[in-house]
Amino acid sequence: MSYKSRKNALYFLPLGGSGEIGMNLNLYQTKGKWLMVDCGISFADSYLPGIDLIMPNVNYIEKRKDDLVGLIITHAHEDHVGALAHLWPRFRCPVYATPFTMILIRQKLAEAGLLGEVPLIEIPLEGNVEVGPFTIDFLSLTHSIPEPNALRIKTDLGVIFHTGDWKLDPDPLVGEATNAAKMQKVGDEGVLALICDSTNVFNPESSGSESTVRDNINQILATKKGKVFCATFSSNVARVDTLAMAARNNGRAICLVGQSLKRNVAAAIEAGYLKDFPKIVSEGEAKNLPNEKILYICTGCQGEARAALMRIAEGNNREVKIVRGDTVIFSSKIIPGNEIMIGRLHNMLVEFGAEVITEKDAFVHVSGHPGQQELRQMYDWIRPDILVPVHGEVRHMEKQAEFGRNHGIPSCLVPRNGTLIRLAPGPAEIVEYNIVGRLALDGGFLIPSEDDAIVTRRRILYNGALVISLVVDMRGEFLTAPVVTNLGNPDGGMGYFEDVIIEAALAAAHKLTTSQRADKNKLAESVRAYARKAAMNYTKKETGPLTVVTVTQMEN
Amino acid sequence: MSYKSRKNALYFLPLGGSGEIGMNLNLYQTKGKWLMVDCGISFADSYLPGIDLIMPNVNYIEKRKDDLVGLIITHAHEDHVGALAHLWPRFRCPVYATPFTMILIRQKLAEAGLLGEVPLIEIPLEGNVEVGPFTIDFLSLTHSIPEPNALRIKTDLGVIFHTGDWKLDPDPLVGEATNAAKMQKVGDEGVLALICDSTNVFNPESSGSESTVRDNINQILATKKGKVFCATFSSNVARVDTLAMAARNNGRAICLVGQSLKRNVAAAIEAGYLKDFPKIVSEGEAKNLPNEKILYICTGCQGEARAALMRIAEGNNREVKIVRGDTVIFSSKIIPGNEIMIGRLHNMLVEFGAEVITEKDAFVHVSGHPGQQELRQMYDWIRPDILVPVHGEVRHMEKQAEFGRNHGIPSCLVPRNGTLIRLAPGPAEIVEYNIVGRLALDGGFLIPSEDDAIVTRRRILYNGALVISLVVDMRGEFLTAPVVTNLGNPDGGMGYFEDVIIEAALAAAHKLTTSQRADKNKLAESVRAYARKAAMNYTKKETGPLTVVTVTQMEN
Repeated sequence: MSYKSRKNALYFLPLGGSGEIGMNLNLYQTKGKWLMVDCGISFADSYLPGIDLIMPNVNYIEKRKDDLVGLIITHAHEDHVGALAHLWPRFRCPVYATPFTMILIRQKLAEAGLLGEVPLIEIPLEGNVEVGPFTIDFLSLTHSIPEPNALRIKTDLGVIFHTGDWKLDPDPLVGEATNAAKMQKVGDEGVLALICDSTNVFNPESSGSESTVRDNINQILATKKGKVFCATFSSNVARVDTLAMAARNNGRAICLVGQSLKRNVAAAIEAGYLKDFPKIVSEGEAKNLPNEKILYICTGCQGEARAALMRIAEGNNREVKIVRGDTVIFSSKIIPGNEIMIGRLHNMLVEFGAEVITEKDAFVHVSGHPGQQELRQMYDWIRPDILVPVHGEVRHMEKQAEFGRNHGIPSCLVPRNGTLIRLAPGPAEIVEYNIVGRLALDGGFLIPSEDDAIVTRRRILYNGALVISLVVDMRGEFLTAPVVTNLGNPDGGMGYFEDVIIEAALAAAHKLTTSQRADKNKLAESVRAYARKAAMNYTKKETGPLTVVTVTQMEN
Repeated sequence: MSYKSRKNALYFLPLGGSGEIGMNLNLYQTKGKWLMVDCGISFADSYLPGIDLIMPNVNYIEKRKDDLVGLIITHAHEDHVGALAHLWPRFRCPVYATPFTMILIRQKLAEAGLLGEVPLIEIPLEGNVEVGPFTIDFLSLTHSIPEPNALRIKTDLGVIFHTGDWKLDPDPLVGEATNAAKMQKVGDEGVLALICDSTNVFNPESSGSESTVRDNINQILATKKGKVFCATFSSNVARVDTLAMAARNNGRAICLVGQSLKRNVAAAIEAGYLKDFPKIVSEGEAKNLPNEKILYICTGCQGEARAALMRIAEGNNREVKIVRGDTVIFSSKIIPGNEIMIGRLHNMLVEFGAEVITEKDAFVHVSGHPGQQELRQMYDWIRPDILVPVHGEVRHMEKQAEFGRNHGIPSCLVPRNGTLIRLAPGPAEIVEYNIVGRLALDGGFLIPSEDDAIVTRRRILYNGALVISLVVDMRGEFLTAPVVTNLGNPDGGMGYFEDVIIEAALAAAHKLTTSQRADKNKLAESVRAYARKAAMNYTKKETGPLTVVTVTQMEN
């Protein structure tokens, strides 16, 4: 039964986040209308040289934007909201979020000059809203940021429970613990499909509680005499609160270092959180306090080059210095791919004589995603007919599907970005595969991740480049020696590279017939092939440099 | 007291491995004569684009090669022997090693065409040799390769105990367990300085035993019906033996996939190990066996692009296929920096329907380096006056120094590559700091890691490049339009980039006075600056592309 033949059906289609941890963007469709949930970014790895941010290619929904009734942002993490300002102009629909998230959305849109344009609808915690054929209840869960919302999406063809990012924290410090009775009731009222976070499915335990982290950091601070620095994720307001309380318990003032941290704390205070938060001292004031009286809370727990902690470690912060006897706590996990950068930062801090404490040394961080015990609890509450694992790489989603099957959920389907799953009517199945792709932010351009600019840089990264400029007459005879520009080909200090290429260019031209030589394109191609080969032979690389030949033909 | 004033002294100087885990190269000096221990490579990270292998810059010892009496290779891991064929021509000295290591050294030298040239001296296990003023005892320890040797280096000024890579395995499967009485005796006879592996100093426990790995893999194989693949480090002959035994116990034949694995197994058999090794079946034979009758042992546990497992996962091995129901065991750790590549490989395997088992799921790998319990045992045996931690990043070495101090070792000094430490006479101290640097293998050239070729590629990686070729007359007037070669600058499919650059080039020339324009260099520099700025404005990147302007001046 094909997609097109079923107008009265309920569909799920992820464009991002089902195949990677990051850039979540999910779509639901019924009665010909689409609902988007989240619009996030991800960080690029070295396969996309020079690219920091990537996001889903939204071509699919752009073509259908007239039928897109709204976008709901479940919470304010970058992998759920970070692409909004970049992509919204492509699909232009109303945006729904709870108060804390909305404060940060407004800031993002203002920076992009879009604030007046985007229809924003603020939904209270535990509120609900009708968006086209979708009736949506917001249900507060716990996570590592204020106001993480699960969505109960009611349609004529069944109810979807979209978890967003979540965990079960019996003592979450910021926000309320998950209400078991309420969740049980959601299950009692019936759920067709559970769309669920897979991030920590390989953890056989529960994720643990923020209050344990507070106790441990409290204990660490009690033993330290020097300055203490604590790096964490800037959006983790509960962690910042944890740190502030531990500081107060130990007679330390707190100082925030890093813009995004200050912004998140301000947003949390504006939204009514952190009511009992201590006074924040400035970097200048902190400098004048005794060492044992200050706790710096910093951005840069992933070793990011421009974040606060790296700038301090490089000596680039005039007010904040690290010296022997200081302690640096990484109250964070290592995001895969950042090991080398973080290791480098650790070494820099140790060189200064600081003690470095990470989650390997003490329980100073707790994850915001559910381990197997929490997933089991969620399945027991919700009792869905269908489980669709999202928010994971293939291995995480497949693992959750297996876990759900073992738990007795009748239908467990693993999506990929671009798969259209029909949830109802009839048995759930994948009915369409779309190629989706990704967009990369390259300077001011949002380009496909396979764009020439990126592919070219990747080629040069390995093999260097080589540009040869020829000036010839109308017969193709060289009027001057070829000019060689070597971009990244090694010659080990020998200085022969250019000579070798010039020789190859001359030989290439010589090999051509008179009529071939008079043809600009033939001449260029022949010189290119010879020169590239000569470069390969010279550098002994398996692949030659990216070689470009330009020919300027002059009338005699 | 300066270095020069003390001819009759004993010195230690690392050129590699003291500041990174990899590329070990250590030097000892007494009576004006130098002894080298190990000559290894390391793998480059993304900071050196296009580079796979790096190694220490041996400039320091090259200048003193007439006083270099020998090189001892402690064991055959690449981070201890991998640079030998590359660097030996620079210092040319006799090379000493035990039999298994020597087999692999001969292969390496033969491949490099150096076999006849290098004086090779094979030392039996537990043997000894006099090399200049150094008398050296080889003592077998345990590690993750056959024949890991510690060196007791006796000199007139004291005894050094150089551990090499080691662990204590009570049941090592290949080779003998460490002889406690022998080690105790080394300590009784007196050791001035212990030069010791720091790799696993953050592990508070012992590393564990190979026999536990065997038991676990045995159990896993007993439950599997499909084909089983096991990826491990190719030099870990004990692991290969473990796998072979587990296969035999479960009625499975073994098939080796990957050249380096075959080479290491052959070398081990030649050196007298693996005496009870089962028959190895070929890939063609394995294909015809029932699924439950075969265990493939593969290279590629780090997700390396060209290794056996990735080639299988990509469908590029004609004889070996992975299908639903198969199991892939990663009997290895993740080397930091390889997380993304390994994660990608896991996802590919899961896509095929294979079950992936790693050391996170079961104890299927054991480290070859000492945890804190083993370090403590070594300190108790050796009882040195001086501890010099090596084989680590700064944080590992500093941690071991702290650990040694807490254990009561009187003097604990942390070296860096290039620090000259006087071990005797008098209190140990750093007496000289030398800048060492690294060499990178770029195609056929061994170039400094800060060479132009690498720096250029790194710049292009982020910012792209731009080459502008001008053809002008003797007054600097353009004879044709500037020719623009865009290498990696995005233009988002707009196609205006080149026009913008040409316009900038024309404007730049126009701004110059007549005499400035007639000056090739001034013209080029002006066009370069304008064009780079125009590119920055166009792409909205914070840094402009690497911009090169070539000027061809034609006589009228």
